[in-house]
Amino acid sequence: MEQGKEFFIGLDLGGTSLKYALGTSGGDILIKDEMDSKADRPQKEVFEVIFKAIKVLREEAKTRGGFVAAIGLGSPGAVDFEKGKLKGNTPNFLHWGDAEIKKTIEAEFAIPCWADNDANVMAFAESRKGAGKGANNVIALTLGTGIGGGILIDGQLFRGTRYAGAELGHITIDYDGEPCNCGGYGCVEKYASAPAMVKNYIEKLTTAKMSIPDKVSTKIIFARAKEGEKQALETIDDTCKYLGAALASIINIFNPEIIVIGGGVADAGDEFMRRIWAATTARTMKPSLEGLKLVRAKMGNDAGVVGAICMASEMYYSQKRD
Amino acid sequence: MEQGKEFFIGLDLGGTSLKYALGTSGGDILIKDEMDSKADRPQKEVFEVIFKAIKVLREEAKTRGGFVAAIGLGSPGAVDFEKGKLKGNTPNFLHWGDAEIKKTIEAEFAIPCWADNDANVMAFAESRKGAGKGANNVIALTLGTGIGGGILIDGQLFRGTRYAGAELGHITIDYDGEPCNCGGYGCVEKYASAPAMVKNYIEKLTTAKMSIPDKVSTKIIFARAKEGEKQALETIDDTCKYLGAALASIINIFNPEIIVIGGGVADAGDEFMRRIWAATTARTMKPSLEGLKLVRAKMGNDAGVVGAICMASEMYYSQKRD
Repeated sequence: MEQGKEFFIGLDLGGTSLKYALGTSGGDILIKDEMDSKADRPQKEVFEVIFKAIKVLREEAKTRGGFVAAIGLGSPGAVDFEKGKLKGNTPNFLHWGDAEIKKTIEAEFAIPCWADNDANVMAFAESRKGAGKGANNVIALTLGTGIGGGILIDGQLFRGTRYAGAELGHITIDYDGEPCNCGGYGCVEKYASAPAMVKNYIEKLTTAKMSIPDKVSTKIIFARAKEGEKQALETIDDTCKYLGAALASIINIFNPEIIVIGGGVADAGDEFMRRIWAATTARTMKPSLEGLKLVRAKMGNDAGVVGAICMASEMYYSQKRD
Repeated sequence: MEQGKEFFIGLDLGGTSLKYALGTSGGDILIKDEMDSKADRPQKEVFEVIFKAIKVLREEAKTRGGFVAAIGLGSPGAVDFEKGKLKGNTPNFLHWGDAEIKKTIEAEFAIPCWADNDANVMAFAESRKGAGKGANNVIALTLGTGIGGGILIDGQLFRGTRYAGAELGHITIDYDGEPCNCGGYGCVEKYASAPAMVKNYIEKLTTAKMSIPDKVSTKIIFARAKEGEKQALETIDDTCKYLGAALASIINIFNPEIIVIGGGVADAGDEFMRRIWAATTARTMKPSLEGLKLVRAKMGNDAGVVGAICMASEMYYSQKRD
């Protein structure tokens, strides 16, 4: 039995970097850093990156007079939460498919580990420490390269029967719509993700015979919208219409207390949030709007590690109780 | 304290009739009947119809050497389950708005009563005694004049924060679609309900300059499709495409074990179910299809009373335990 104060490790595995942090049982970060996640390297090497981060944090816990009680990890892709194992592949990692995250980490360190999908972990962070704190029924939506989702019902993550649910980016908003990478058609991700916004904007510039900047980004679109450029404003209006359609479905289904919007696109600010809200409420059933809030995520870049720390901590103490 | 065997009353309040039944704690019907629900009459008269049915069944329970332990009731409209009270109005009843169902029945009979939305009650019946028996995560969809839904998570009805959720008929399938009575646009109910199918079929007949029958119904459409009529077949294909889009969203969100399809339109039979399945699976994310079943509802016209009996029974015994 380890002695001293209980600390928790949060790992946020992304296509570019592994973010890692040591935190308290309450989800407060004590120290954090990141390193190259080697997403294009063999699975063994990705695990070595993870091991290295854990070793650093384990030393840190010792220095602080305690030990690492549990490890939480958020990974891209569908994760079987019970087994802590990736289900199939994930596009940004070459060899991460079917990775036995929980088993491999526990075998190396003899510290209990829990792994979940990164969107779930981020939603968990917002519900425990961020914009959704205190709410029981929370929907979290991440707008970035893709659209991710997390669902909390009665304060707990809802993952679906085989951990394949909560794919909120793959809600159909056009039954006859564009094919999506997921195998579906007309998914909201194809219309309202960052690449979709950029594509839409370039089309509008092309139609208007305007010059196209070298690197179009959502930042450029929002900046030009602020200057009043018609094409940028229309692109944002379109995006809000698409998001509003998906959010109306989500609200009519879940009647949530709060919807938390995160990810790079949401950083555009409050005016964008107001437009999303207007486009959503204009088409949602009225009884579900009672008391509903739509807010920006608060945890920013720390969401992944904080969510993983909170998850590890809650699972650790709930098992200790049993 | 009443003596003898515990019986349960199930009431299914509809725009045409009140179905009522006496059942066992296990949800088996002992006796059932129906009477005019007086949907166009003042609220007091609707309650008098309900009282009359309860009195009949209370006598029946006595004759059988027992008593009525609890009453369950399914009503159209959004129902606050905790208060057993209608939230706002429901289109098919003139004066049923804000009806205090639980309070009024309990005051009259001193028997505990639970009231819920009729689609929830039907979903409950399918999960306890019908096609969804044994499954934890069940989605029930009722295809009729409207499209209703019920969601069971971990074996319990999910109703949303303020009992306004599970509106599966109001999932957007076309962001730029037709306005819906709910205030939204492009809801699947506007495309795949019985009236929507009839409208679509009449449009196809008109375009083809074919004669239009006096009373077009979904029955006529399915009968003509069986004979190979192009317009009828296309109408059914369209319906399956619309339903497939909504079901793909539902499956990507919930990753359920089983989807139960009920209501008049589903009575069309297994060939229709196969077409819905094909249209759905062609656009759903593959991990969520693992082990998933899509089946016809089993409880038919008894779903409402059986669901209400099961709900009353479960609530009664869970309160007794506490």
